[in-house]
Amino acid sequence: MKAVVVEKPGSIAVVERDIPEITETQVLVKVKAAGICGSDVHIFHGKNAFATYPRVVGHEFVGEVVKVGSQTEHIAVGDRVAVDPVVSCGHCYACQHDRHNVCSSLQVMGVHRDGGFQEYVAADYRQAYKLPDNIPWEIAATVEPYSIGAQVAHRGRLTGDDTVLICGAGPIGLIILQVAKMKGARVAILDIVESRLEKAKEMGADMVVNGKTTDIVDAMKEFTNGEGFNLIYEATANTKILATCIRDLPSQAGRIVVLGFTTQELPIRQVDIMGRELEIIGTRLNNHRFPEVIGWFKDGKVQPKEIITHTFPFAKAGEAFAFNDEHPDKVLKIILTFD
Amino acid sequence: MKAVVVEKPGSIAVVERDIPEITETQVLVKVKAAGICGSDVHIFHGKNAFATYPRVVGHEFVGEVVKVGSQTEHIAVGDRVAVDPVVSCGHCYACQHDRHNVCSSLQVMGVHRDGGFQEYVAADYRQAYKLPDNIPWEIAATVEPYSIGAQVAHRGRLTGDDTVLICGAGPIGLIILQVAKMKGARVAILDIVESRLEKAKEMGADMVVNGKTTDIVDAMKEFTNGEGFNLIYEATANTKILATCIRDLPSQAGRIVVLGFTTQELPIRQVDIMGRELEIIGTRLNNHRFPEVIGWFKDGKVQPKEIITHTFPFAKAGEAFAFNDEHPDKVLKIILTFD
Repeated sequence: MKAVVVEKPGSIAVVERDIPEITETQVLVKVKAAGICGSDVHIFHGKNAFATYPRVVGHEFVGEVVKVGSQTEHIAVGDRVAVDPVVSCGHCYACQHDRHNVCSSLQVMGVHRDGGFQEYVAADYRQAYKLPDNIPWEIAATVEPYSIGAQVAHRGRLTGDDTVLICGAGPIGLIILQVAKMKGARVAILDIVESRLEKAKEMGADMVVNGKTTDIVDAMKEFTNGEGFNLIYEATANTKILATCIRDLPSQAGRIVVLGFTTQELPIRQVDIMGRELEIIGTRLNNHRFPEVIGWFKDGKVQPKEIITHTFPFAKAGEAFAFNDEHPDKVLKIILTFD
Repeated sequence: MKAVVVEKPGSIAVVERDIPEITETQVLVKVKAAGICGSDVHIFHGKNAFATYPRVVGHEFVGEVVKVGSQTEHIAVGDRVAVDPVVSCGHCYACQHDRHNVCSSLQVMGVHRDGGFQEYVAADYRQAYKLPDNIPWEIAATVEPYSIGAQVAHRGRLTGDDTVLICGAGPIGLIILQVAKMKGARVAILDIVESRLEKAKEMGADMVVNGKTTDIVDAMKEFTNGEGFNLIYEATANTKILATCIRDLPSQAGRIVVLGFTTQELPIRQVDIMGRELEIIGTRLNNHRFPEVIGWFKDGKVQPKEIITHTFPFAKAGEAFAFNDEHPDKVLKIILTFD
């Protein structure tokens, strides 16, 4: 079979590999579609603090089950499935407290171990979630990024009462926008790429703010009547923006959810946290949110089609990565197709 | 009647004032005992960012109801009550979301408006909580500081499963220790005053760490088997300690509760928050926790007597403040008595 391998930072190739063997508790999935995430691109560029090399990248993938181990349940040959890339130990403090996505020996397929940009993938049957027949493969490949939207909604305790700010109108920012609008919240979104803000406006953003031309603090005052945002999602990983989010933008009892993972330092002040009982909340991957997202897709509650801008055959992954880098104004989500 | 007034930073005096008039929804309380808090001392020293002058300080006080307004309920003349000093508007986002302690027009008795270091205090009847007869006045005056313990337990979602670090073994740190031990948690406590650490040991701390002689990161590794603390209370307001708490000390899925309110900046990194799904949680005052604490006192679940080290007649408040400043190694809580 063929696999897309990032051999080291800057070097990507399609190589020949054996089809994986499965264990008693695994299923073998023939991959049908897979999405390219910013973090795949960061691994290619050597900028992902968690990745090791060489690595078959890709953690957003779906396919058909072609073999099942003797100790599997619920999943049969022929099932269409989305595979949750999060692998945990089940025994540590986080796992025992229903937080397996921050397991102390966490492994993410496509980051710490090989992922979905290959024709066949072996995965534990408990990571495979059945897909309804009415969801096409390309659409289904976005279940994983939407699971981030579900996770951040849970982490921030997002409700329809909230006035929300999303910093960053890339694919994840726009997915959070769709989830927040689904919940009935009032939503402002901040970016510096005008085409992304136009997309956000089409998707129902109540205010779009171009940080190049508008001061976000002024915009907050107008939008929230000076009260501040109840819930802020920081999805740009820009330390200056996060510092402003903590100091100048939240309401009393506000929550700030941090998605980025740069190692750069930023200054904060205790008085800003204590005075408003702020919560600064980290969020990572997803914590068993696939069933919730598949339900959204089935019921048409979110619009994954709006996020997908391009498709490439998976063997042209290198070209797809380059295209992604060269066209930040055009690309939201590239799907790799397998046939 | 007599009242203790901080007229401006550095100037404290006992003055003659009229007994307050009450409104239809207020009760008049004849104060029987009141505790001196670090924040009272900070107001005296001009180091409390929230206070205005002149101010009758004191937000930890109890007394006997001597008059009730026509529109009050549940409270009668002769009742022994503890008065919650937190005054909120009832209408803003925080109030409407059950977070009245961070009301956008928050007023705290003894900080933003006159407090309890006077012979009579008028307060809304909904701020007055009845005390059982078996709790002496001096003990009852610590209901308010224990309400901080109750609040931080809620904010940090403290359970008996947690391995906890408390930074600071002053009165609040020791109260948190008692609450955490009551819940069944394993608790380490950090300070630099040996006599306070000895007190913590007597109260059941599983590990005491003198930061002058022991590296807290090494101590954490030994105490938590390298996993980190699940829950950290930062009650020193020292920015260096908080930075260490965020970067070096928490477990995966850990929570760090921030009690201090200095305006000094400290550096944090997004990767430390996102990678572990940390939560940095502000906590302020208490959110209707008096009934819970009065229940603890009634049932003997906490040991308020251990916190009280000295009593002074309230007319000697100035001397009591000076004594508090001069003997950090001896003083935990000074109670002012009224008779």
